[in-house]
Amino acid sequence: MQETINVAIIGASGYTGLELLKILTVHPRFKIRYVGTSEGGEDIIAMHPSLKNVVSGKAEKSEADAIANVASLAFLALPHQASMGFAKKLLALGVKVIDLSADYRLTQSVYEAHYCPHEDPLNLSHAVYGLPEFYRKPLASASLVANPGCYPTATLLALVPFLPYMRPQAPIIVDAKSGISGAGKKPNPVTQFVSINENMMAYNPLSHRHEPEIKEQLFKHGGEQKQICFVPQLIPVTRGMLVNAYVQLKESIDPIAVLEAYYANEPFVRIRREPVSLKATAGSHFCDIFAKEKEGVLFLSSSIDNLLRGASSQAVVNANIMCGLDEYMGIPTLSYVP
Amino acid sequence: MQETINVAIIGASGYTGLELLKILTVHPRFKIRYVGTSEGGEDIIAMHPSLKNVVSGKAEKSEADAIANVASLAFLALPHQASMGFAKKLLALGVKVIDLSADYRLTQSVYEAHYCPHEDPLNLSHAVYGLPEFYRKPLASASLVANPGCYPTATLLALVPFLPYMRPQAPIIVDAKSGISGAGKKPNPVTQFVSINENMMAYNPLSHRHEPEIKEQLFKHGGEQKQICFVPQLIPVTRGMLVNAYVQLKESIDPIAVLEAYYANEPFVRIRREPVSLKATAGSHFCDIFAKEKEGVLFLSSSIDNLLRGASSQAVVNANIMCGLDEYMGIPTLSYVP
Amino acid sequence: MQETINVAIIGASGYTGLELLKILTVHPRFKIRYVGTSEGGEDIIAMHPSLKNVVSGKAEKSEADAIANVASLAFLALPHQASMGFAKKLLALGVKVIDLSADYRLTQSVYEAHYCPHEDPLNLSHAVYGLPEFYRKPLASASLVANPGCYPTATLLALVPFLPYMRPQAPIIVDAKSGISGAGKKPNPVTQFVSINENMMAYNPLSHRHEPEIKEQLFKHGGEQKQICFVPQLIPVTRGMLVNAYVQLKESIDPIAVLEAYYANEPFVRIRREPVSLKATAGSHFCDIFAKEKEGVLFLSSSIDNLLRGASSQAVVNANIMCGLDEYMGIPTLSYVP
Amino acid sequence: MQETINVAIIGASGYTGLELLKILTVHPRFKIRYVGTSEGGEDIIAMHPSLKNVVSGKAEKSEADAIANVASLAFLALPHQASMGFAKKLLALGVKVIDLSADYRLTQSVYEAHYCPHEDPLNLSHAVYGLPEFYRKPLASASLVANPGCYPTATLLALVPFLPYMRPQAPIIVDAKSGISGAGKKPNPVTQFVSINENMMAYNPLSHRHEPEIKEQLFKHGGEQKQICFVPQLIPVTRGMLVNAYVQLKESIDPIAVLEAYYANEPFVRIRREPVSLKATAGSHFCDIFAKEKEGVLFLSSSIDNLLRGASSQAVVNANIMCGLDEYMGIPTLSYVP
Repeated sequence: MQETINVAIIGASGYTGLELLKILTVHPRFKIRYVGTSEGGEDIIAMHPSLKNVVSGKAEKSEADAIANVASLAFLALPHQASMGFAKKLLALGVKVIDLSADYRLTQSVYEAHYCPHEDPLNLSHAVYGLPEFYRKPLASASLVANPGCYPTATLLALVPFLPYMRPQAPIIVDAKSGISGAGKKPNPVTQFVSINENMMAYNPLSHRHEPEIKEQLFKHGGEQKQICFVPQLIPVTRGMLVNAYVQLKESIDPIAVLEAYYANEPFVRIRREPVSLKATAGSHFCDIFAKEKEGVLFLSSSIDNLLRGASSQAVVNANIMCGLDEYMGIPTLSYVP
Repeated sequence: MQETINVAIIGASGYTGLELLKILTVHPRFKIRYVGTSEGGEDIIAMHPSLKNVVSGKAEKSEADAIANVASLAFLALPHQASMGFAKKLLALGVKVIDLSADYRLTQSVYEAHYCPHEDPLNLSHAVYGLPEFYRKPLASASLVANPGCYPTATLLALVPFLPYMRPQAPIIVDAKSGISGAGKKPNPVTQFVSINENMMAYNPLSHRHEPEIKEQLFKHGGEQKQICFVPQLIPVTRGMLVNAYVQLKESIDPIAVLEAYYANEPFVRIRREPVSLKATAGSHFCDIFAKEKEGVLFLSSSIDNLLRGASSQAVVNANIMCGLDEYMGIPTLSYVP
Repeated sequence: MQETINVAIIGASGYTGLELLKILTVHPRFKIRYVGTSEGGEDIIAMHPSLKNVVSGKAEKSEADAIANVASLAFLALPHQASMGFAKKLLALGVKVIDLSADYRLTQSVYEAHYCPHEDPLNLSHAVYGLPEFYRKPLASASLVANPGCYPTATLLALVPFLPYMRPQAPIIVDAKSGISGAGKKPNPVTQFVSINENMMAYNPLSHRHEPEIKEQLFKHGGEQKQICFVPQLIPVTRGMLVNAYVQLKESIDPIAVLEAYYANEPFVRIRREPVSLKATAGSHFCDIFAKEKEGVLFLSSSIDNLLRGASSQAVVNANIMCGLDEYMGIPTLSYVP
Repeated sequence: MQETINVAIIGASGYTGLELLKILTVHPRFKIRYVGTSEGGEDIIAMHPSLKNVVSGKAEKSEADAIANVASLAFLALPHQASMGFAKKLLALGVKVIDLSADYRLTQSVYEAHYCPHEDPLNLSHAVYGLPEFYRKPLASASLVANPGCYPTATLLALVPFLPYMRPQAPIIVDAKSGISGAGKKPNPVTQFVSINENMMAYNPLSHRHEPEIKEQLFKHGGEQKQICFVPQLIPVTRGMLVNAYVQLKESIDPIAVLEAYYANEPFVRIRREPVSLKATAGSHFCDIFAKEKEGVLFLSSSIDNLLRGASSQAVVNANIMCGLDEYMGIPTLSYVP
């Protein structure tokens, strides 16, 4: 019998916290030893009634020392800005951290231009961006992982293989759609059923904070600044994300062949010959990608579960890699179809 | 008291036929004298139970002579290809025709490249494209109107005002989303509830037949061939259409000001300073448009009801113009909100 | 040309307020002269963007004197308890009142048992219950109308015709389902999209405050106390209400014949020979009813639009009757199908 | 390492077939050796694209001999009537059968009154009804299991504990709601998205074929004929089932205490103190039950996943019991929340 690895979930009341609970409670090697919330004291079943007879116990007030006593790795599902203060303490106590917020995803200057002054620049400088297909090697020795945003995950997995073929200077259009769970659990007028049912609309067009994240990662892979025109939209589904990208090419290519070659050894990226759908990935860690070219324009469409591949299952893959486990141990493969 | 104008609805069993029944049954001047289906004999209430106590009578087998006996204008809500044979006969009998199919929307060569040989080239040559904001004058004297497609309506109302500002050669990206009613009433695996609920996907990307329609109309307005990259998508709502277009500009502009000037006297085009939503137009004839520019790329988003502004209410506006009535007589203004 | 009747809508920011705005703005005789909210000063279009180019102007802070200066009739779409204080003042100033809250629906003792002390017992004693099919005559001379709840409207229209046939003592089961708009506009965790999409659940089973309203009305019609077991449920649709009732019969009857005879002259009650559906009535004032009997148990199913027949269109019908207009002037008949 | 047990899934193209594929492909002991369809030859991924990189291979034309060669147990996800012919052959060849159709659920005379002449009365006489909480013991030695219907499963788990407390003679009202996946995969007008979205309606009220199934099982448990008034309804969700039952009691009881005592040792029946919701069970094998009593009437509400507890996961629990495995081996516990 193999040793268990004790982990903590901090920020367990939200949607990504719930998904972490679901994955880790059946994970063969990780054992949840600490479930943290801002207040502490809540019965986990009262927070998440669907977990009755699956998980039990109470949440604890999130405190770094207490966590370090029982866990060697912590998942932080905290709001942006709150996260970095907490991560800093945990790292100082020797706890590995996977941060699901934006706090360690960007270089300091870009972060500060879009968010706020950074409180932990030292750790920021060695954080690894947790997109496993691209950063498998540095992840293996990382103590701090910046788990990518959902939009950047779906966008980068589609775009990166085509960087060598893109016309320089031409803008990249990213028309993205997210299920409502991406907006978080806190009630607000926009996420009311009556507001979004039978409805759809863009929000923060050309000014969403995932745009610089995409841009920076493309630069890291391609060595060239790209203009990204990123328009996110809310659609009336609970979970799922569909990202369409439009790219101008230098030359004509067979885009399916490019994708199949690039992801030949990646079991969780599925190249599709028909346009991808939300539901085929919802509930799983898969990213499905479709591509088609016409008259020099490449159309890409990728689909992920925003809460899993876009957050929690990606976090667990990163944890598996950091701990030397099989990369896909305990990762959900069965989508919510039908 | 003003004289009534007798009209026929041919193809009354489908969704656009139902919308025509709803609008025309409360229209102050048009009187429905003939409700035609392919078989004839159905009780209208059995076809459309929601119309009980509103409309009554039976459908008749669609026959041109019988229609010409009782009506001076006919709305054809027939499938592509079936429509032109029927329109030809009605026109020969002196009945004005508003054709909701694609049969008279395109020049002959383009039509035949995307559909089939055209059976009525003579009438095609003088058909007027029924987008009232652009063709009000020729519509006033038209005997045959080609009612535009839903995607072209939403796309053209957004794009046309910006033709003078577009960078030549640069492709125009059109990422469009339609409610499922746009796929028609006939059961098929894709439009099953289980297939599309909590789901979304592109179909016919870069090869949909509305692409040449958009292209031809842009050419008529701008005098220049444009590359259109058109990707339609199905979203899990019954009605509504959201079209996002991405355009490269020659120079920086204030796009809201451009739109407000262009549509200053158009009561059914509403310029929005926040991204448009599906529901604000669903149930009405309005087209809502939002625009934003960044670094030389213009983002446009327009919203219409696919069955009304995209089909049946636009047909009735065209009929109003053709008959010298007030352009907006009997046109729905109250959307399905909440 | 006929004289207009000036009216006020108090509580215009909510869903029933919006529906009143939509109906009254196109009503042939009523003219909206006062749109009141609790704060006042909001642009109506900012509150209800879908009304752009349809309604204009600003809301005013709701004040009885100002209303009495410009309107002879007021619709109160206010919360329970807030309404009675306001109605009392308006009535004293000679303004007719249609109250959409629960404040005047129940006898004083029953009201106080389920809500709070009643502040206006004098007016309560002469308020007329605004279910037009049952109270047409007293409504004609009423100055204060208690507009019924949505659940009681759908339930009573189905049950009342069968009162003579019911087994005494046997409980009446009412299993009712409401669209989410019935829960009002204020954001809360239960009405979030993620909470209710793909979901359904009962709330306040056997203890909802519409139960005594149904009971009291059945007593008024049948002269006998009935046991009502009322279970309301939320379903993932925006609007619409389906009420199933189960009744034990004294003897075998033909329930469709009973309904058709009872409602022979009622154009807005449609007796159906197939089970009723939500959508056939949503968007309209219709109430659809189906009935079937087996082995002494009668199954009834009725469908209404919770915001129209269950609130705002019923209020306007009541206003029409109170003002001597045609009962169905300006009342919506076209449902949101497809 | 423990021996695998080879199984066949016959009828793999439908929704319950897909759920069987999903459960069995990750089951620790069962190994799928035969995937049968009526035609055979389909690529499994083409039938169920969401299974790409999870399952592979081709379906085979369903033939009893070929199945008996490779599998010792078969799951039949076939239409009613087709199933019994096939089961008969498999049983003769020594293959254990779990039949998901209605063919072995009823006594012969009741079956023939509601379906058709029975072709396999011999096996029918020893088939075990596969509701594990009630028939655990006979299931352990069964060779043929009749997997219960979805409606009966949810209804019986709620009703059976209360049989001792029911007033004799009084009818039991069952108002049931099912997600659309319960209607199967074949396109038809009722299950179109446009037909059922924003809609809800009863079907086959008081005459659905699950009514005699419920009745017969209640008789087996209680020794007394009950009158069941069963009204099924379609709701606009993909999966999930909510059953409300209304029962008249002989005496006052604490219904939650009754349930908690009855199911004290049943991990997959969860007694709830708040009304149950669809989503808390969808995706899992759990059955959630809520109960409340008032004035002699008991309200029960139970929730299951119609495709899992109502079909496929229940079938695998039965298979586990028949094969002497841990009853809940490989059974899904994590619901589709959020």
